[in-house]
Amino acid sequence: MSSLTAEQLRRQVATLLVVRASGHLEDSQRRYPRWELANDQLQRLLNDGVGGVILLGGSAVELQQRTQQLQRWSPQPLLLCADVEEGVGQRFEGASWLVPPLALGRLYQSDPVQAISLTERYGRCTADQARRCGLNWVLGPVCDVNNNPDNPVINVRAWGEDPSTAGALASAFQRGLAEGGVIGCAKHFPGHGDTSSDSHLDLPVIHHTLERLERVELPPFQAAIAAGVDSVMTAHLLLPELDPQRPATLSTAVLTKLLRETLDFKGLVVTDALVMDAIAARYGAAEAAVLAFEAGADLILMPGDADAAIDALCSAFGEGRLPLSRLDQSLQRRHQALARTGSAPPPSAFPAIVTPEEHQLERELVRRTLEINPAPKISASTGLNLVRVDSVLPSCHPLHGAAPALTLPAAQGFSTVLIHGQGVSPWQANPEAPLALEQLGHGPVLLQLFLRGNPFRGTQDSREPWPAAIQQLLDINRLAGVVVYGSPYLWDSLQPLLPETLPAAYSPGQMPEAQHQVLTQLLPGTGTRAGAFTD
Amino acid sequence: MSSLTAEQLRRQVATLLVVRASGHLEDSQRRYPRWELANDQLQRLLNDGVGGVILLGGSAVELQQRTQQLQRWSPQPLLLCADVEEGVGQRFEGASWLVPPLALGRLYQSDPVQAISLTERYGRCTADQARRCGLNWVLGPVCDVNNNPDNPVINVRAWGEDPSTAGALASAFQRGLAEGGVIGCAKHFPGHGDTSSDSHLDLPVIHHTLERLERVELPPFQAAIAAGVDSVMTAHLLLPELDPQRPATLSTAVLTKLLRETLDFKGLVVTDALVMDAIAARYGAAEAAVLAFEAGADLILMPGDADAAIDALCSAFGEGRLPLSRLDQSLQRRHQALARTGSAPPPSAFPAIVTPEEHQLERELVRRTLEINPAPKISASTGLNLVRVDSVLPSCHPLHGAAPALTLPAAQGFSTVLIHGQGVSPWQANPEAPLALEQLGHGPVLLQLFLRGNPFRGTQDSREPWPAAIQQLLDINRLAGVVVYGSPYLWDSLQPLLPETLPAAYSPGQMPEAQHQVLTQLLPGTGTRAGAFTD
Repeated sequence: MSSLTAEQLRRQVATLLVVRASGHLEDSQRRYPRWELANDQLQRLLNDGVGGVILLGGSAVELQQRTQQLQRWSPQPLLLCADVEEGVGQRFEGASWLVPPLALGRLYQSDPVQAISLTERYGRCTADQARRCGLNWVLGPVCDVNNNPDNPVINVRAWGEDPSTAGALASAFQRGLAEGGVIGCAKHFPGHGDTSSDSHLDLPVIHHTLERLERVELPPFQAAIAAGVDSVMTAHLLLPELDPQRPATLSTAVLTKLLRETLDFKGLVVTDALVMDAIAARYGAAEAAVLAFEAGADLILMPGDADAAIDALCSAFGEGRLPLSRLDQSLQRRHQALARTGSAPPPSAFPAIVTPEEHQLERELVRRTLEINPAPKISASTGLNLVRVDSVLPSCHPLHGAAPALTLPAAQGFSTVLIHGQGVSPWQANPEAPLALEQLGHGPVLLQLFLRGNPFRGTQDSREPWPAAIQQLLDINRLAGVVVYGSPYLWDSLQPLLPETLPAAYSPGQMPEAQHQVLTQLLPGTGTRAGAFTD
Repeated sequence: MSSLTAEQLRRQVATLLVVRASGHLEDSQRRYPRWELANDQLQRLLNDGVGGVILLGGSAVELQQRTQQLQRWSPQPLLLCADVEEGVGQRFEGASWLVPPLALGRLYQSDPVQAISLTERYGRCTADQARRCGLNWVLGPVCDVNNNPDNPVINVRAWGEDPSTAGALASAFQRGLAEGGVIGCAKHFPGHGDTSSDSHLDLPVIHHTLERLERVELPPFQAAIAAGVDSVMTAHLLLPELDPQRPATLSTAVLTKLLRETLDFKGLVVTDALVMDAIAARYGAAEAAVLAFEAGADLILMPGDADAAIDALCSAFGEGRLPLSRLDQSLQRRHQALARTGSAPPPSAFPAIVTPEEHQLERELVRRTLEINPAPKISASTGLNLVRVDSVLPSCHPLHGAAPALTLPAAQGFSTVLIHGQGVSPWQANPEAPLALEQLGHGPVLLQLFLRGNPFRGTQDSREPWPAAIQQLLDINRLAGVVVYGSPYLWDSLQPLLPETLPAAYSPGQMPEAQHQVLTQLLPGTGTRAGAFTD
């Protein structure tokens, strides 16, 4: 080891970095140019030995070409990953977008055998499509227990609201990934479920003792580890009972003592994105990378400045702050994980992304997780289709394409108004009648709420007075129907307000298939699949 | 010819159809499933001999795979086309999206030599990128003279507002296409520039005499024919002076007498989309195809029902209503046009879509066509970025991606509100103060209008009281700046209202590059290309 040249050391250190790139091929198509490296920088870093890329943006077909391009730019086999927790179609249009994990966590309460079987298929579908797109590392399962309904960052991404459900389904998902030959990643260690602030924006503090963690937060990680998960991602959380100084991502107590020693995890430990403010703002890109490695991480995800992170790690190894044996161990773990992904050469012709069986799974997951109130169908033949969405411009969007949430009510005679965070406010300063209805339109209102507690939004959505708005519409006899797509907590809170005779439904999924299944049951004359968009 | 079997006749007739498909690979990704054939239908029709496909939707990278897939489904070389009048990026994200033709028509007034040179490069860029995506037929140049500023369907798509400008630039564009080895298409014969209704929605009537057509409408077509254009597309217009019964698309007087005989055009005559209501609602898919062919068309574009069109044409040939010699002529013309596209085999590896020179052209076209009022920069450091866009959900959208129209004002401290046809209305019932400002926000207003008189929208946009809204903001001293992206007519109408000291600008283009160039000149501290998104 001591005979490493500076150049060799640099290449080996670089191997442990995972940098971020757009899934699009052209620099001008990047959605987040601040975070996504330009192609010339990517090409240089990969050529210099950077060993992994996390991808976001672009369609599944673009991703097929993008992953081949990135691999061509590198002299070594790359780790190519994405946050495709809910199927590859969650991030890359054209692949399967599946219902959020928590939907299966709820199904597990009534039918655990079926929930486990569906979850294994869910993992296998995600793995198979990831491989067809050139990815070999899926950043899931989420192992956090969503025991705080106000959690702004985990929420429906979790497989359960209690440790045993989350553990059973996270390990079923991991088995599906392994069958499909991709690496999985249990996250966010040691558990991000019980926070009400968003670590994308701030550093949450969790005052749990080790005993409490062992009872609630750790079991799903233990289950995933027992199922053979290849990597674990750290959380940007401060747990003062374990380490009063350092967030978990940078804590020896959490990564080495708890994860490696107590839980006996032998795979790859990867940081969550180091650019996130909870870390970046406090420690800087260079020092954060060294602290993470020192604490026990093997891979550094999304350092704010890849060159600075490499420089700092090289200095730390050169000065003896970090022992070279740790470098060797991390490289060895990376090598072993990669070996488990198989070494099939990239296909010469690009395979189709979705199989008929996978389309069938998409539909089955929606069908088994939706709830429809046993009320008459919506009888109004004109009116207002009032649709609340998180935003309207991202390219992976539930309303892109021929969205049934827009086309089916339109066919019935409803006109659509979209409410979203970038639009004109629909609210007025009257707590009893918060909707400014004269700005919205006339007639009966079909209200469709696409709200799931997304990260990066703080508590913005939860401040909207939907219960009062529903009461306002009921009072003037203008509520024709209500659909919630996404948050079970929102649905739970609205349901007591809804008369039994009101057409109403809930789907955990927001995708076009969910819209189609819900609205063909709520609207008359749309029961057939004539003009179906999904197959 | 008389020895043709029914099967042979059917295949030959099918060769002359051009059907519509999504550029996406998956059926579920289709944006317009009503008009875009599903893959199983496409595969059957191509296998049965259908000879052309018009594509819309999907990214340029997806189109590369899609065109190869379609060609694999066909036993013969296909005509693969798209409405990429403003560069391939107008329809397929990731390719170059160039300023609208009329911008060069205006430049031609002051600098004809430069306008012609830029237009030739524009055509060459479009052709080269079309070929890289697997297209061999560009449905341009538009040869209509936009002498009616209220024209809802041509407008900025025209190369000029007078015959000589339109002719000079349409033929320059055609020369560029020919250099790039793709087929061009002069449209919409005999001239769609002087209508104020939209033939997508209704059948416009034009009372011009032949003498008037020869003076105004026909010269650009004659110029394009002289430049060697390979095809001419018909207009869905009624010209009672030429044919009191039939719209141009179905008129022997227009297609055979005027186009073939008087103008001596020897190439392919293709109908505009037969599904458009102006034709489909009156004649039906089957009879419209026969009438078009009878009138002199060679290729039938987007029949409402391809099988019905083939059946009807086969019957017409079988019964002698159409002579088989016409079938032979049309097949011969198609063969000759295809031969001019070259027969390079599809590339084994997909080429990059955009070259650095083409990025340069995108920027140069924006730079040479924008207008900035010589006023101070916008000094307000907070306020409202009020953005009017046609809609927010299409995938090829000026505000998708890291749009400078959103990010640059945000960096300056402005908050964005999007106004669009699917959103909450920003208007109130006060003609003097039409903007409902209390729904919109506080502070100085930067007004950005993305309006270009798009087809399919009737006169919807022009009814919005933007002049009164500008006066309203001026009266209360809240107007920080105005930008128009798109219509020169809107800009012309607003400019007299704007004080000389008001920061204001106009760009014919709506693409991110236009937003960047405009806003870096209007906003302080954004003058460098740091964080540039285009390269």
